[in-house]
Amino acid sequence: MTYSYVTELYCPKCGSTYSTDEQINLCTCGSPLLVSYDYDSIKASLTKEELAKREPTLWRYHELLPVKNPENVISFGEGMTPLIEMKSLSEEYGISRVYMKDEGLIPTGSFKARGSAVGVSKAKELHIKEIAMPTNGNAGAAWSLYAAKAGIKSHIVMPLDAPLITRKEVEISGANLYLVDGVISDAGKIVARSVKENGWFDVSTLKEPYRIEGKKTMGFEIAEQFQWELPDVIVYPTGGGVGLIGIYKAFKELMDLGWVKKDKFPRLVATQAADCAPIVKAFEEGKTESEFWHHSKTAAFGINVPKALGDFLVLDAIYKTNGCAVAIDDETLLAEQKLIAQKEGAFICPEGAATFATVRILREKNWIKANETVVCLNTGMGIKYPETVEVNATFVDKETTISLAK
Amino acid sequence: MTYSYVTELYCPKCGSTYSTDEQINLCTCGSPLLVSYDYDSIKASLTKEELAKREPTLWRYHELLPVKNPENVISFGEGMTPLIEMKSLSEEYGISRVYMKDEGLIPTGSFKARGSAVGVSKAKELHIKEIAMPTNGNAGAAWSLYAAKAGIKSHIVMPLDAPLITRKEVEISGANLYLVDGVISDAGKIVARSVKENGWFDVSTLKEPYRIEGKKTMGFEIAEQFQWELPDVIVYPTGGGVGLIGIYKAFKELMDLGWVKKDKFPRLVATQAADCAPIVKAFEEGKTESEFWHHSKTAAFGINVPKALGDFLVLDAIYKTNGCAVAIDDETLLAEQKLIAQKEGAFICPEGAATFATVRILREKNWIKANETVVCLNTGMGIKYPETVEVNATFVDKETTISLAK
Repeated sequence: MTYSYVTELYCPKCGSTYSTDEQINLCTCGSPLLVSYDYDSIKASLTKEELAKREPTLWRYHELLPVKNPENVISFGEGMTPLIEMKSLSEEYGISRVYMKDEGLIPTGSFKARGSAVGVSKAKELHIKEIAMPTNGNAGAAWSLYAAKAGIKSHIVMPLDAPLITRKEVEISGANLYLVDGVISDAGKIVARSVKENGWFDVSTLKEPYRIEGKKTMGFEIAEQFQWELPDVIVYPTGGGVGLIGIYKAFKELMDLGWVKKDKFPRLVATQAADCAPIVKAFEEGKTESEFWHHSKTAAFGINVPKALGDFLVLDAIYKTNGCAVAIDDETLLAEQKLIAQKEGAFICPEGAATFATVRILREKNWIKANETVVCLNTGMGIKYPETVEVNATFVDKETTISLAK
Repeated sequence: MTYSYVTELYCPKCGSTYSTDEQINLCTCGSPLLVSYDYDSIKASLTKEELAKREPTLWRYHELLPVKNPENVISFGEGMTPLIEMKSLSEEYGISRVYMKDEGLIPTGSFKARGSAVGVSKAKELHIKEIAMPTNGNAGAAWSLYAAKAGIKSHIVMPLDAPLITRKEVEISGANLYLVDGVISDAGKIVARSVKENGWFDVSTLKEPYRIEGKKTMGFEIAEQFQWELPDVIVYPTGGGVGLIGIYKAFKELMDLGWVKKDKFPRLVATQAADCAPIVKAFEEGKTESEFWHHSKTAAFGINVPKALGDFLVLDAIYKTNGCAVAIDDETLLAEQKLIAQKEGAFICPEGAATFATVRILREKNWIKANETVVCLNTGMGIKYPETVEVNATFVDKETTISLAK
């Protein structure tokens, strides 16, 4: 029984290839690396029916993941998150079917768990002992906790403005936490210098090639949960954009396997914040790379990424699928977050709320048609962002009888 | 196709029965009511193999749940939470197999979602329009969000000291939130008076008969995840104790169905906090009911319940299964919480940590044997309790290079 059919790393820019048995970051040309598999052998050995019987975690797709020995798998049961039909929102927006893929129901409460589950497991397989990364909070929390289970030491550099709860998660894992008064790009530069100094492995977004393999499982799950008939539109809150790149890669792989219809991609939509929208700007200008966004700022902190290393891959996925990119201001996304809690009972993160606000706008513009099926990625739990909710409670004493009767 | 084989409500104290088609709280004798089913028909129509094919939510057990019409089901994909083997802790405690049933991976991040999913769905079926409840936080959060999806208005009364994040969850759901400087029993009295005044339905613990049916699915899942071979010991953090009563009921039902070995119950252990241990005191004194615990206090706020309405059912389950009850002080449970994060990478809630501390003590006393299989219920995510972690971060400036090299 072959657990993984991983073959090699390849560079999407220059075509160079590398072994998956070595500790490696970027291509010598500076590009992120992607992972390839022996799709013919997977096709010959795995069926959809076999898959349907497996445990409801992302490891059900182990043939299409890079970890070769199952003993290296570090798992807390992550994956196969619910796909929830949002009937009130469908009505509100005037669209046949609107779904939420709820990435809040995953260890550490954010989709970052997928990348860290696969990334840390592969790091363990490669005998990596110490890792470092910049983070807007959730990735640092996920990586440091998974690393703790793997016996790997973590060094996490985080902006001061990142969600406070993620500091607690990093701290309790036993990792070293560093806070910087800046944005994730500043944290990234500190990490880049520090890994050299200390001999740590850099697991920054896309400098580490396996995180994307964990993220792509969102695409596999969406396909499987829709019985291998892909939806029309998928909306993704885009910071580093790894999830969007991963979902696109997942669908290409499923097409290679013949499990979904060839070349009928869902239109991929990147949602960004109005005050941090480098991908949206590049898309609107028809460019293939983005420019650094100065003085970025948003309540949806996870997508406060002024310049993504994989911007060219995100834009490529958008163009190839006839997708688009949309910027949402904070007031709009926070209003949508509240509406979703009250209409659908889901307290989602501001990044997730921004994708629903995007759907509303794209329907108004008729870019999304009334009879289409749309999936929004809610990338985390609302409870990680307590500051997005203002409480108006009534203080009562023990002898009170509440009386609202007319 | 019969969706539910529910038959009636019965009183475990006086034996009276009631219809499940009416809005009802307690028995006229004052006891909580329990739900019964037509087990013979379930036996004839449902197999373990059929069950294995169903979606990974608690609704897979719908024949054994009280909601008759699937259209009334309010679900966010709750249930089939991971059962994680804790290998480092097994070694630490000197026990063959220690598992965590992780109830953090559920909507709203606590096991309370199970009770509210079933309770709110049944409330919808019974045309209830407005509910009220006292809560230590997590139940109020879960009920108000599920109720929002059902179009039911909620009134939530919460102690001032309840986890702050749960105020945010209640608020964003659109519920009315009331805060009282007291404990949950004080909140309960306010609710009892207010439901009469306003004509709301009282969904307090065990005054509402269906919440326990949601909680019992933890027992079904444990049985199914262990391939219908029950573990030796199950440890549960006990406030109101509905989960423990529910798990006991689940195993009795599975025995009735012939799905698990007859009368071979896991020993059920109730964990309480040292400064709120009414069940432990009653158990140590061999009593069948507990007394009100004055001046209760604990960091594990969910189990700060001075007197549980279902105490006699909890004690009955403990006695019948040769279980026990153990009190853990805050310092001990917080130390265990930290150790679990660092050894197992899991940031769990203080209530859950108390169950692991209990296992450590019971192994030291040889009450748990080295070759036994133990399951601890982690009833929620650590991130809902940020105050349990003190952060010791290093502040760095943008030009820093971290240097820890020797």
